Amino acid sequence: MNALLLHTPGEPAGIGPELILRLAQQPISACRVVIADGQLLRATARHLGLSIELRPFEGDRQATPAGVLWHLPQDLPTQVAFGQPSPDNAVYLLGCLREAVALASQAHSAVITGPLHKASINAAGIAFSGHTEFLAQCCGGGVPIMLLVAGNLRVALATTHLPLRQVPDAITPSSLRHCLRVLTAELRQRFRITSPRIQVCGLNPHAGESGHLGEEEAAIIEPVIREFRAAGYQLIGPVPADTAFTRERLAHCDAVLAMYHDQGLPTLKHAGFGTAVNVTLGLPIIRTSVDHGTAFDIAGQGIAELGSLQAAEQLAMELASHAA
Amino acid sequence: MNALLLHTPGEPAGIGPELILRLAQQPISACRVVIADGQLLRATARHLGLSIELRPFEGDRQATPAGVLWHLPQDLPTQVAFGQPSPDNAVYLLGCLREAVALASQAHSAVITGPLHKASINAAGIAFSGHTEFLAQCCGGGVPIMLLVAGNLRVALATTHLPLRQVPDAITPSSLRHCLRVLTAELRQRFRITSPRIQVCGLNPHAGESGHLGEEEAAIIEPVIREFRAAGYQLIGPVPADTAFTRERLAHCDAVLAMYHDQGLPTLKHAGFGTAVNVTLGLPIIRTSVDHGTAFDIAGQGIAELGSLQAAEQLAMELASHAA
Repeated sequence: MNALLLHTPGEPAGIGPELILRLAQQPISACRVVIADGQLLRATARHLGLSIELRPFEGDRQATPAGVLWHLPQDLPTQVAFGQPSPDNAVYLLGCLREAVALASQAHSAVITGPLHKASINAAGIAFSGHTEFLAQCCGGGVPIMLLVAGNLRVALATTHLPLRQVPDAITPSSLRHCLRVLTAELRQRFRITSPRIQVCGLNPHAGESGHLGEEEAAIIEPVIREFRAAGYQLIGPVPADTAFTRERLAHCDAVLAMYHDQGLPTLKHAGFGTAVNVTLGLPIIRTSVDHGTAFDIAGQGIAELGSLQAAEQLAMELASHAA
Repeated sequence: MNALLLHTPGEPAGIGPELILRLAQQPISACRVVIADGQLLRATARHLGLSIELRPFEGDRQATPAGVLWHLPQDLPTQVAFGQPSPDNAVYLLGCLREAVALASQAHSAVITGPLHKASINAAGIAFSGHTEFLAQCCGGGVPIMLLVAGNLRVALATTHLPLRQVPDAITPSSLRHCLRVLTAELRQRFRITSPRIQVCGLNPHAGESGHLGEEEAAIIEPVIREFRAAGYQLIGPVPADTAFTRERLAHCDAVLAMYHDQGLPTLKHAGFGTAVNVTLGLPIIRTSVDHGTAFDIAGQGIAELGSLQAAEQLAMELASHAA
């Protein structure tokens, strides 16, 4: 069975629509479906001089020729100019996501999301804390884990979008246990790594240097690591984050668990050359996402980097092929 | 005049002595001086089958042939076995550093330090918070800034060895001003970059995302940046740390100022391939250092990576050649 790849291009005033149209110039053996407003897609294609045929998606998983997208229409209340988002379209955006989640519960399916503009959804009076959180809600709850992938480098985050001063208290035995369980289970099931080896970073510089530079390692991280090792998990650490990403260290692990956003992601995005993919773990569906924003300043110019969307689709297809 | 390169190999039970002996197999046009115990150096050379001639350094800056080190003897109270440091040698270690600092005040000179083992100096009853701090004290005070260099990538740190939960309060307008002044001045004088462009990272993820993820950017970092820009400094930021290290961004700056250790160093050490060099800014002398520790587990085996010491010496020579 061909994989079902459900694309939500995201914010209509951003670079999402043009990226999916450019991606559509390359054929794929999967069924590449776009969930978006047809008029928006056609107008953007005309603007960029791209040829595109939108074929109604009716459930058959047909392969996708170059220049074609299988289409599930959603109606945009307000057509927007490039770079000028409108809160009127918040309901449309969330509708696209809900439809994608509903279809992604089928076998060999995945959702690939383009960038949203959080502020314009909130401006519509809808409390919206983030793409990932909304998808988790659509899936009926659960605490998702953010994993970033660039080539062979995989970095998961124990905390995500928190002010730095809130990070130390957010690292608790139960949050770490959840991360380690979800990360290990998904590396096994979705990434087909039989016995995943995870490097766990310390919270403090030099992983606390035996307590001289912080106590969270000894108090929280080390006991959880010991407990999980005893249960058969392959854990390395807590390791100092500054040496966790040397090539030698990375060669001996399948993923790095960073304690917070800026401990793990700078290296990943440096190494990723614009092809980093955000994967949401801990949901019943497969979801990958571009690692960039709406880039309003260059929307409509056809110059945005396609690498991240390409990589996000490729990884989604790979993960979907494993999914029962 | 040949540059004067003053090497202190550091902890005698670690990999420092073998690294300088291996480095000495390569000739150099500078005067390469080692400040260390002669018996230790000769015994280590014999153990590793390296030929070495220690010639007394008497102040003439002669070039250094292969297999030779110019030598300033310091006596080790206790000869140690590989991997087994002794607190008895703390006074020796600090003596080597003091002698290096005294000589480094001459023109075209630099100190290159090997790794110390902080705990064994403290075990001798000497309060010792770090190599850099001790050197600053020998130089008569001042607040040094840590800069790590790997090829073209330069990362300075606004805070260094602090528990993560103390970091936010340590970022103050006056500490930032000091960093920006010292970093800019030394990039000009020592690195010969006429108008250094510095990317300043935010403290919080996404540089605070307009206050949604923290307030330190708006309250502290942005005002200092505005003030310094008005005074002619070339500053970019505050930028989100996760995208500060993409190749595109790095191409447009001469250095990154990270707010804390694990925000800046993981990427630098990943990119550095074992050739990262620690440069101490803000002192009247030039000092570079290896970026690794004593590696007791492999000391005496001749397998430690020479790259960081090689790079540290090369950069020291380059910086010394600029110094009046």
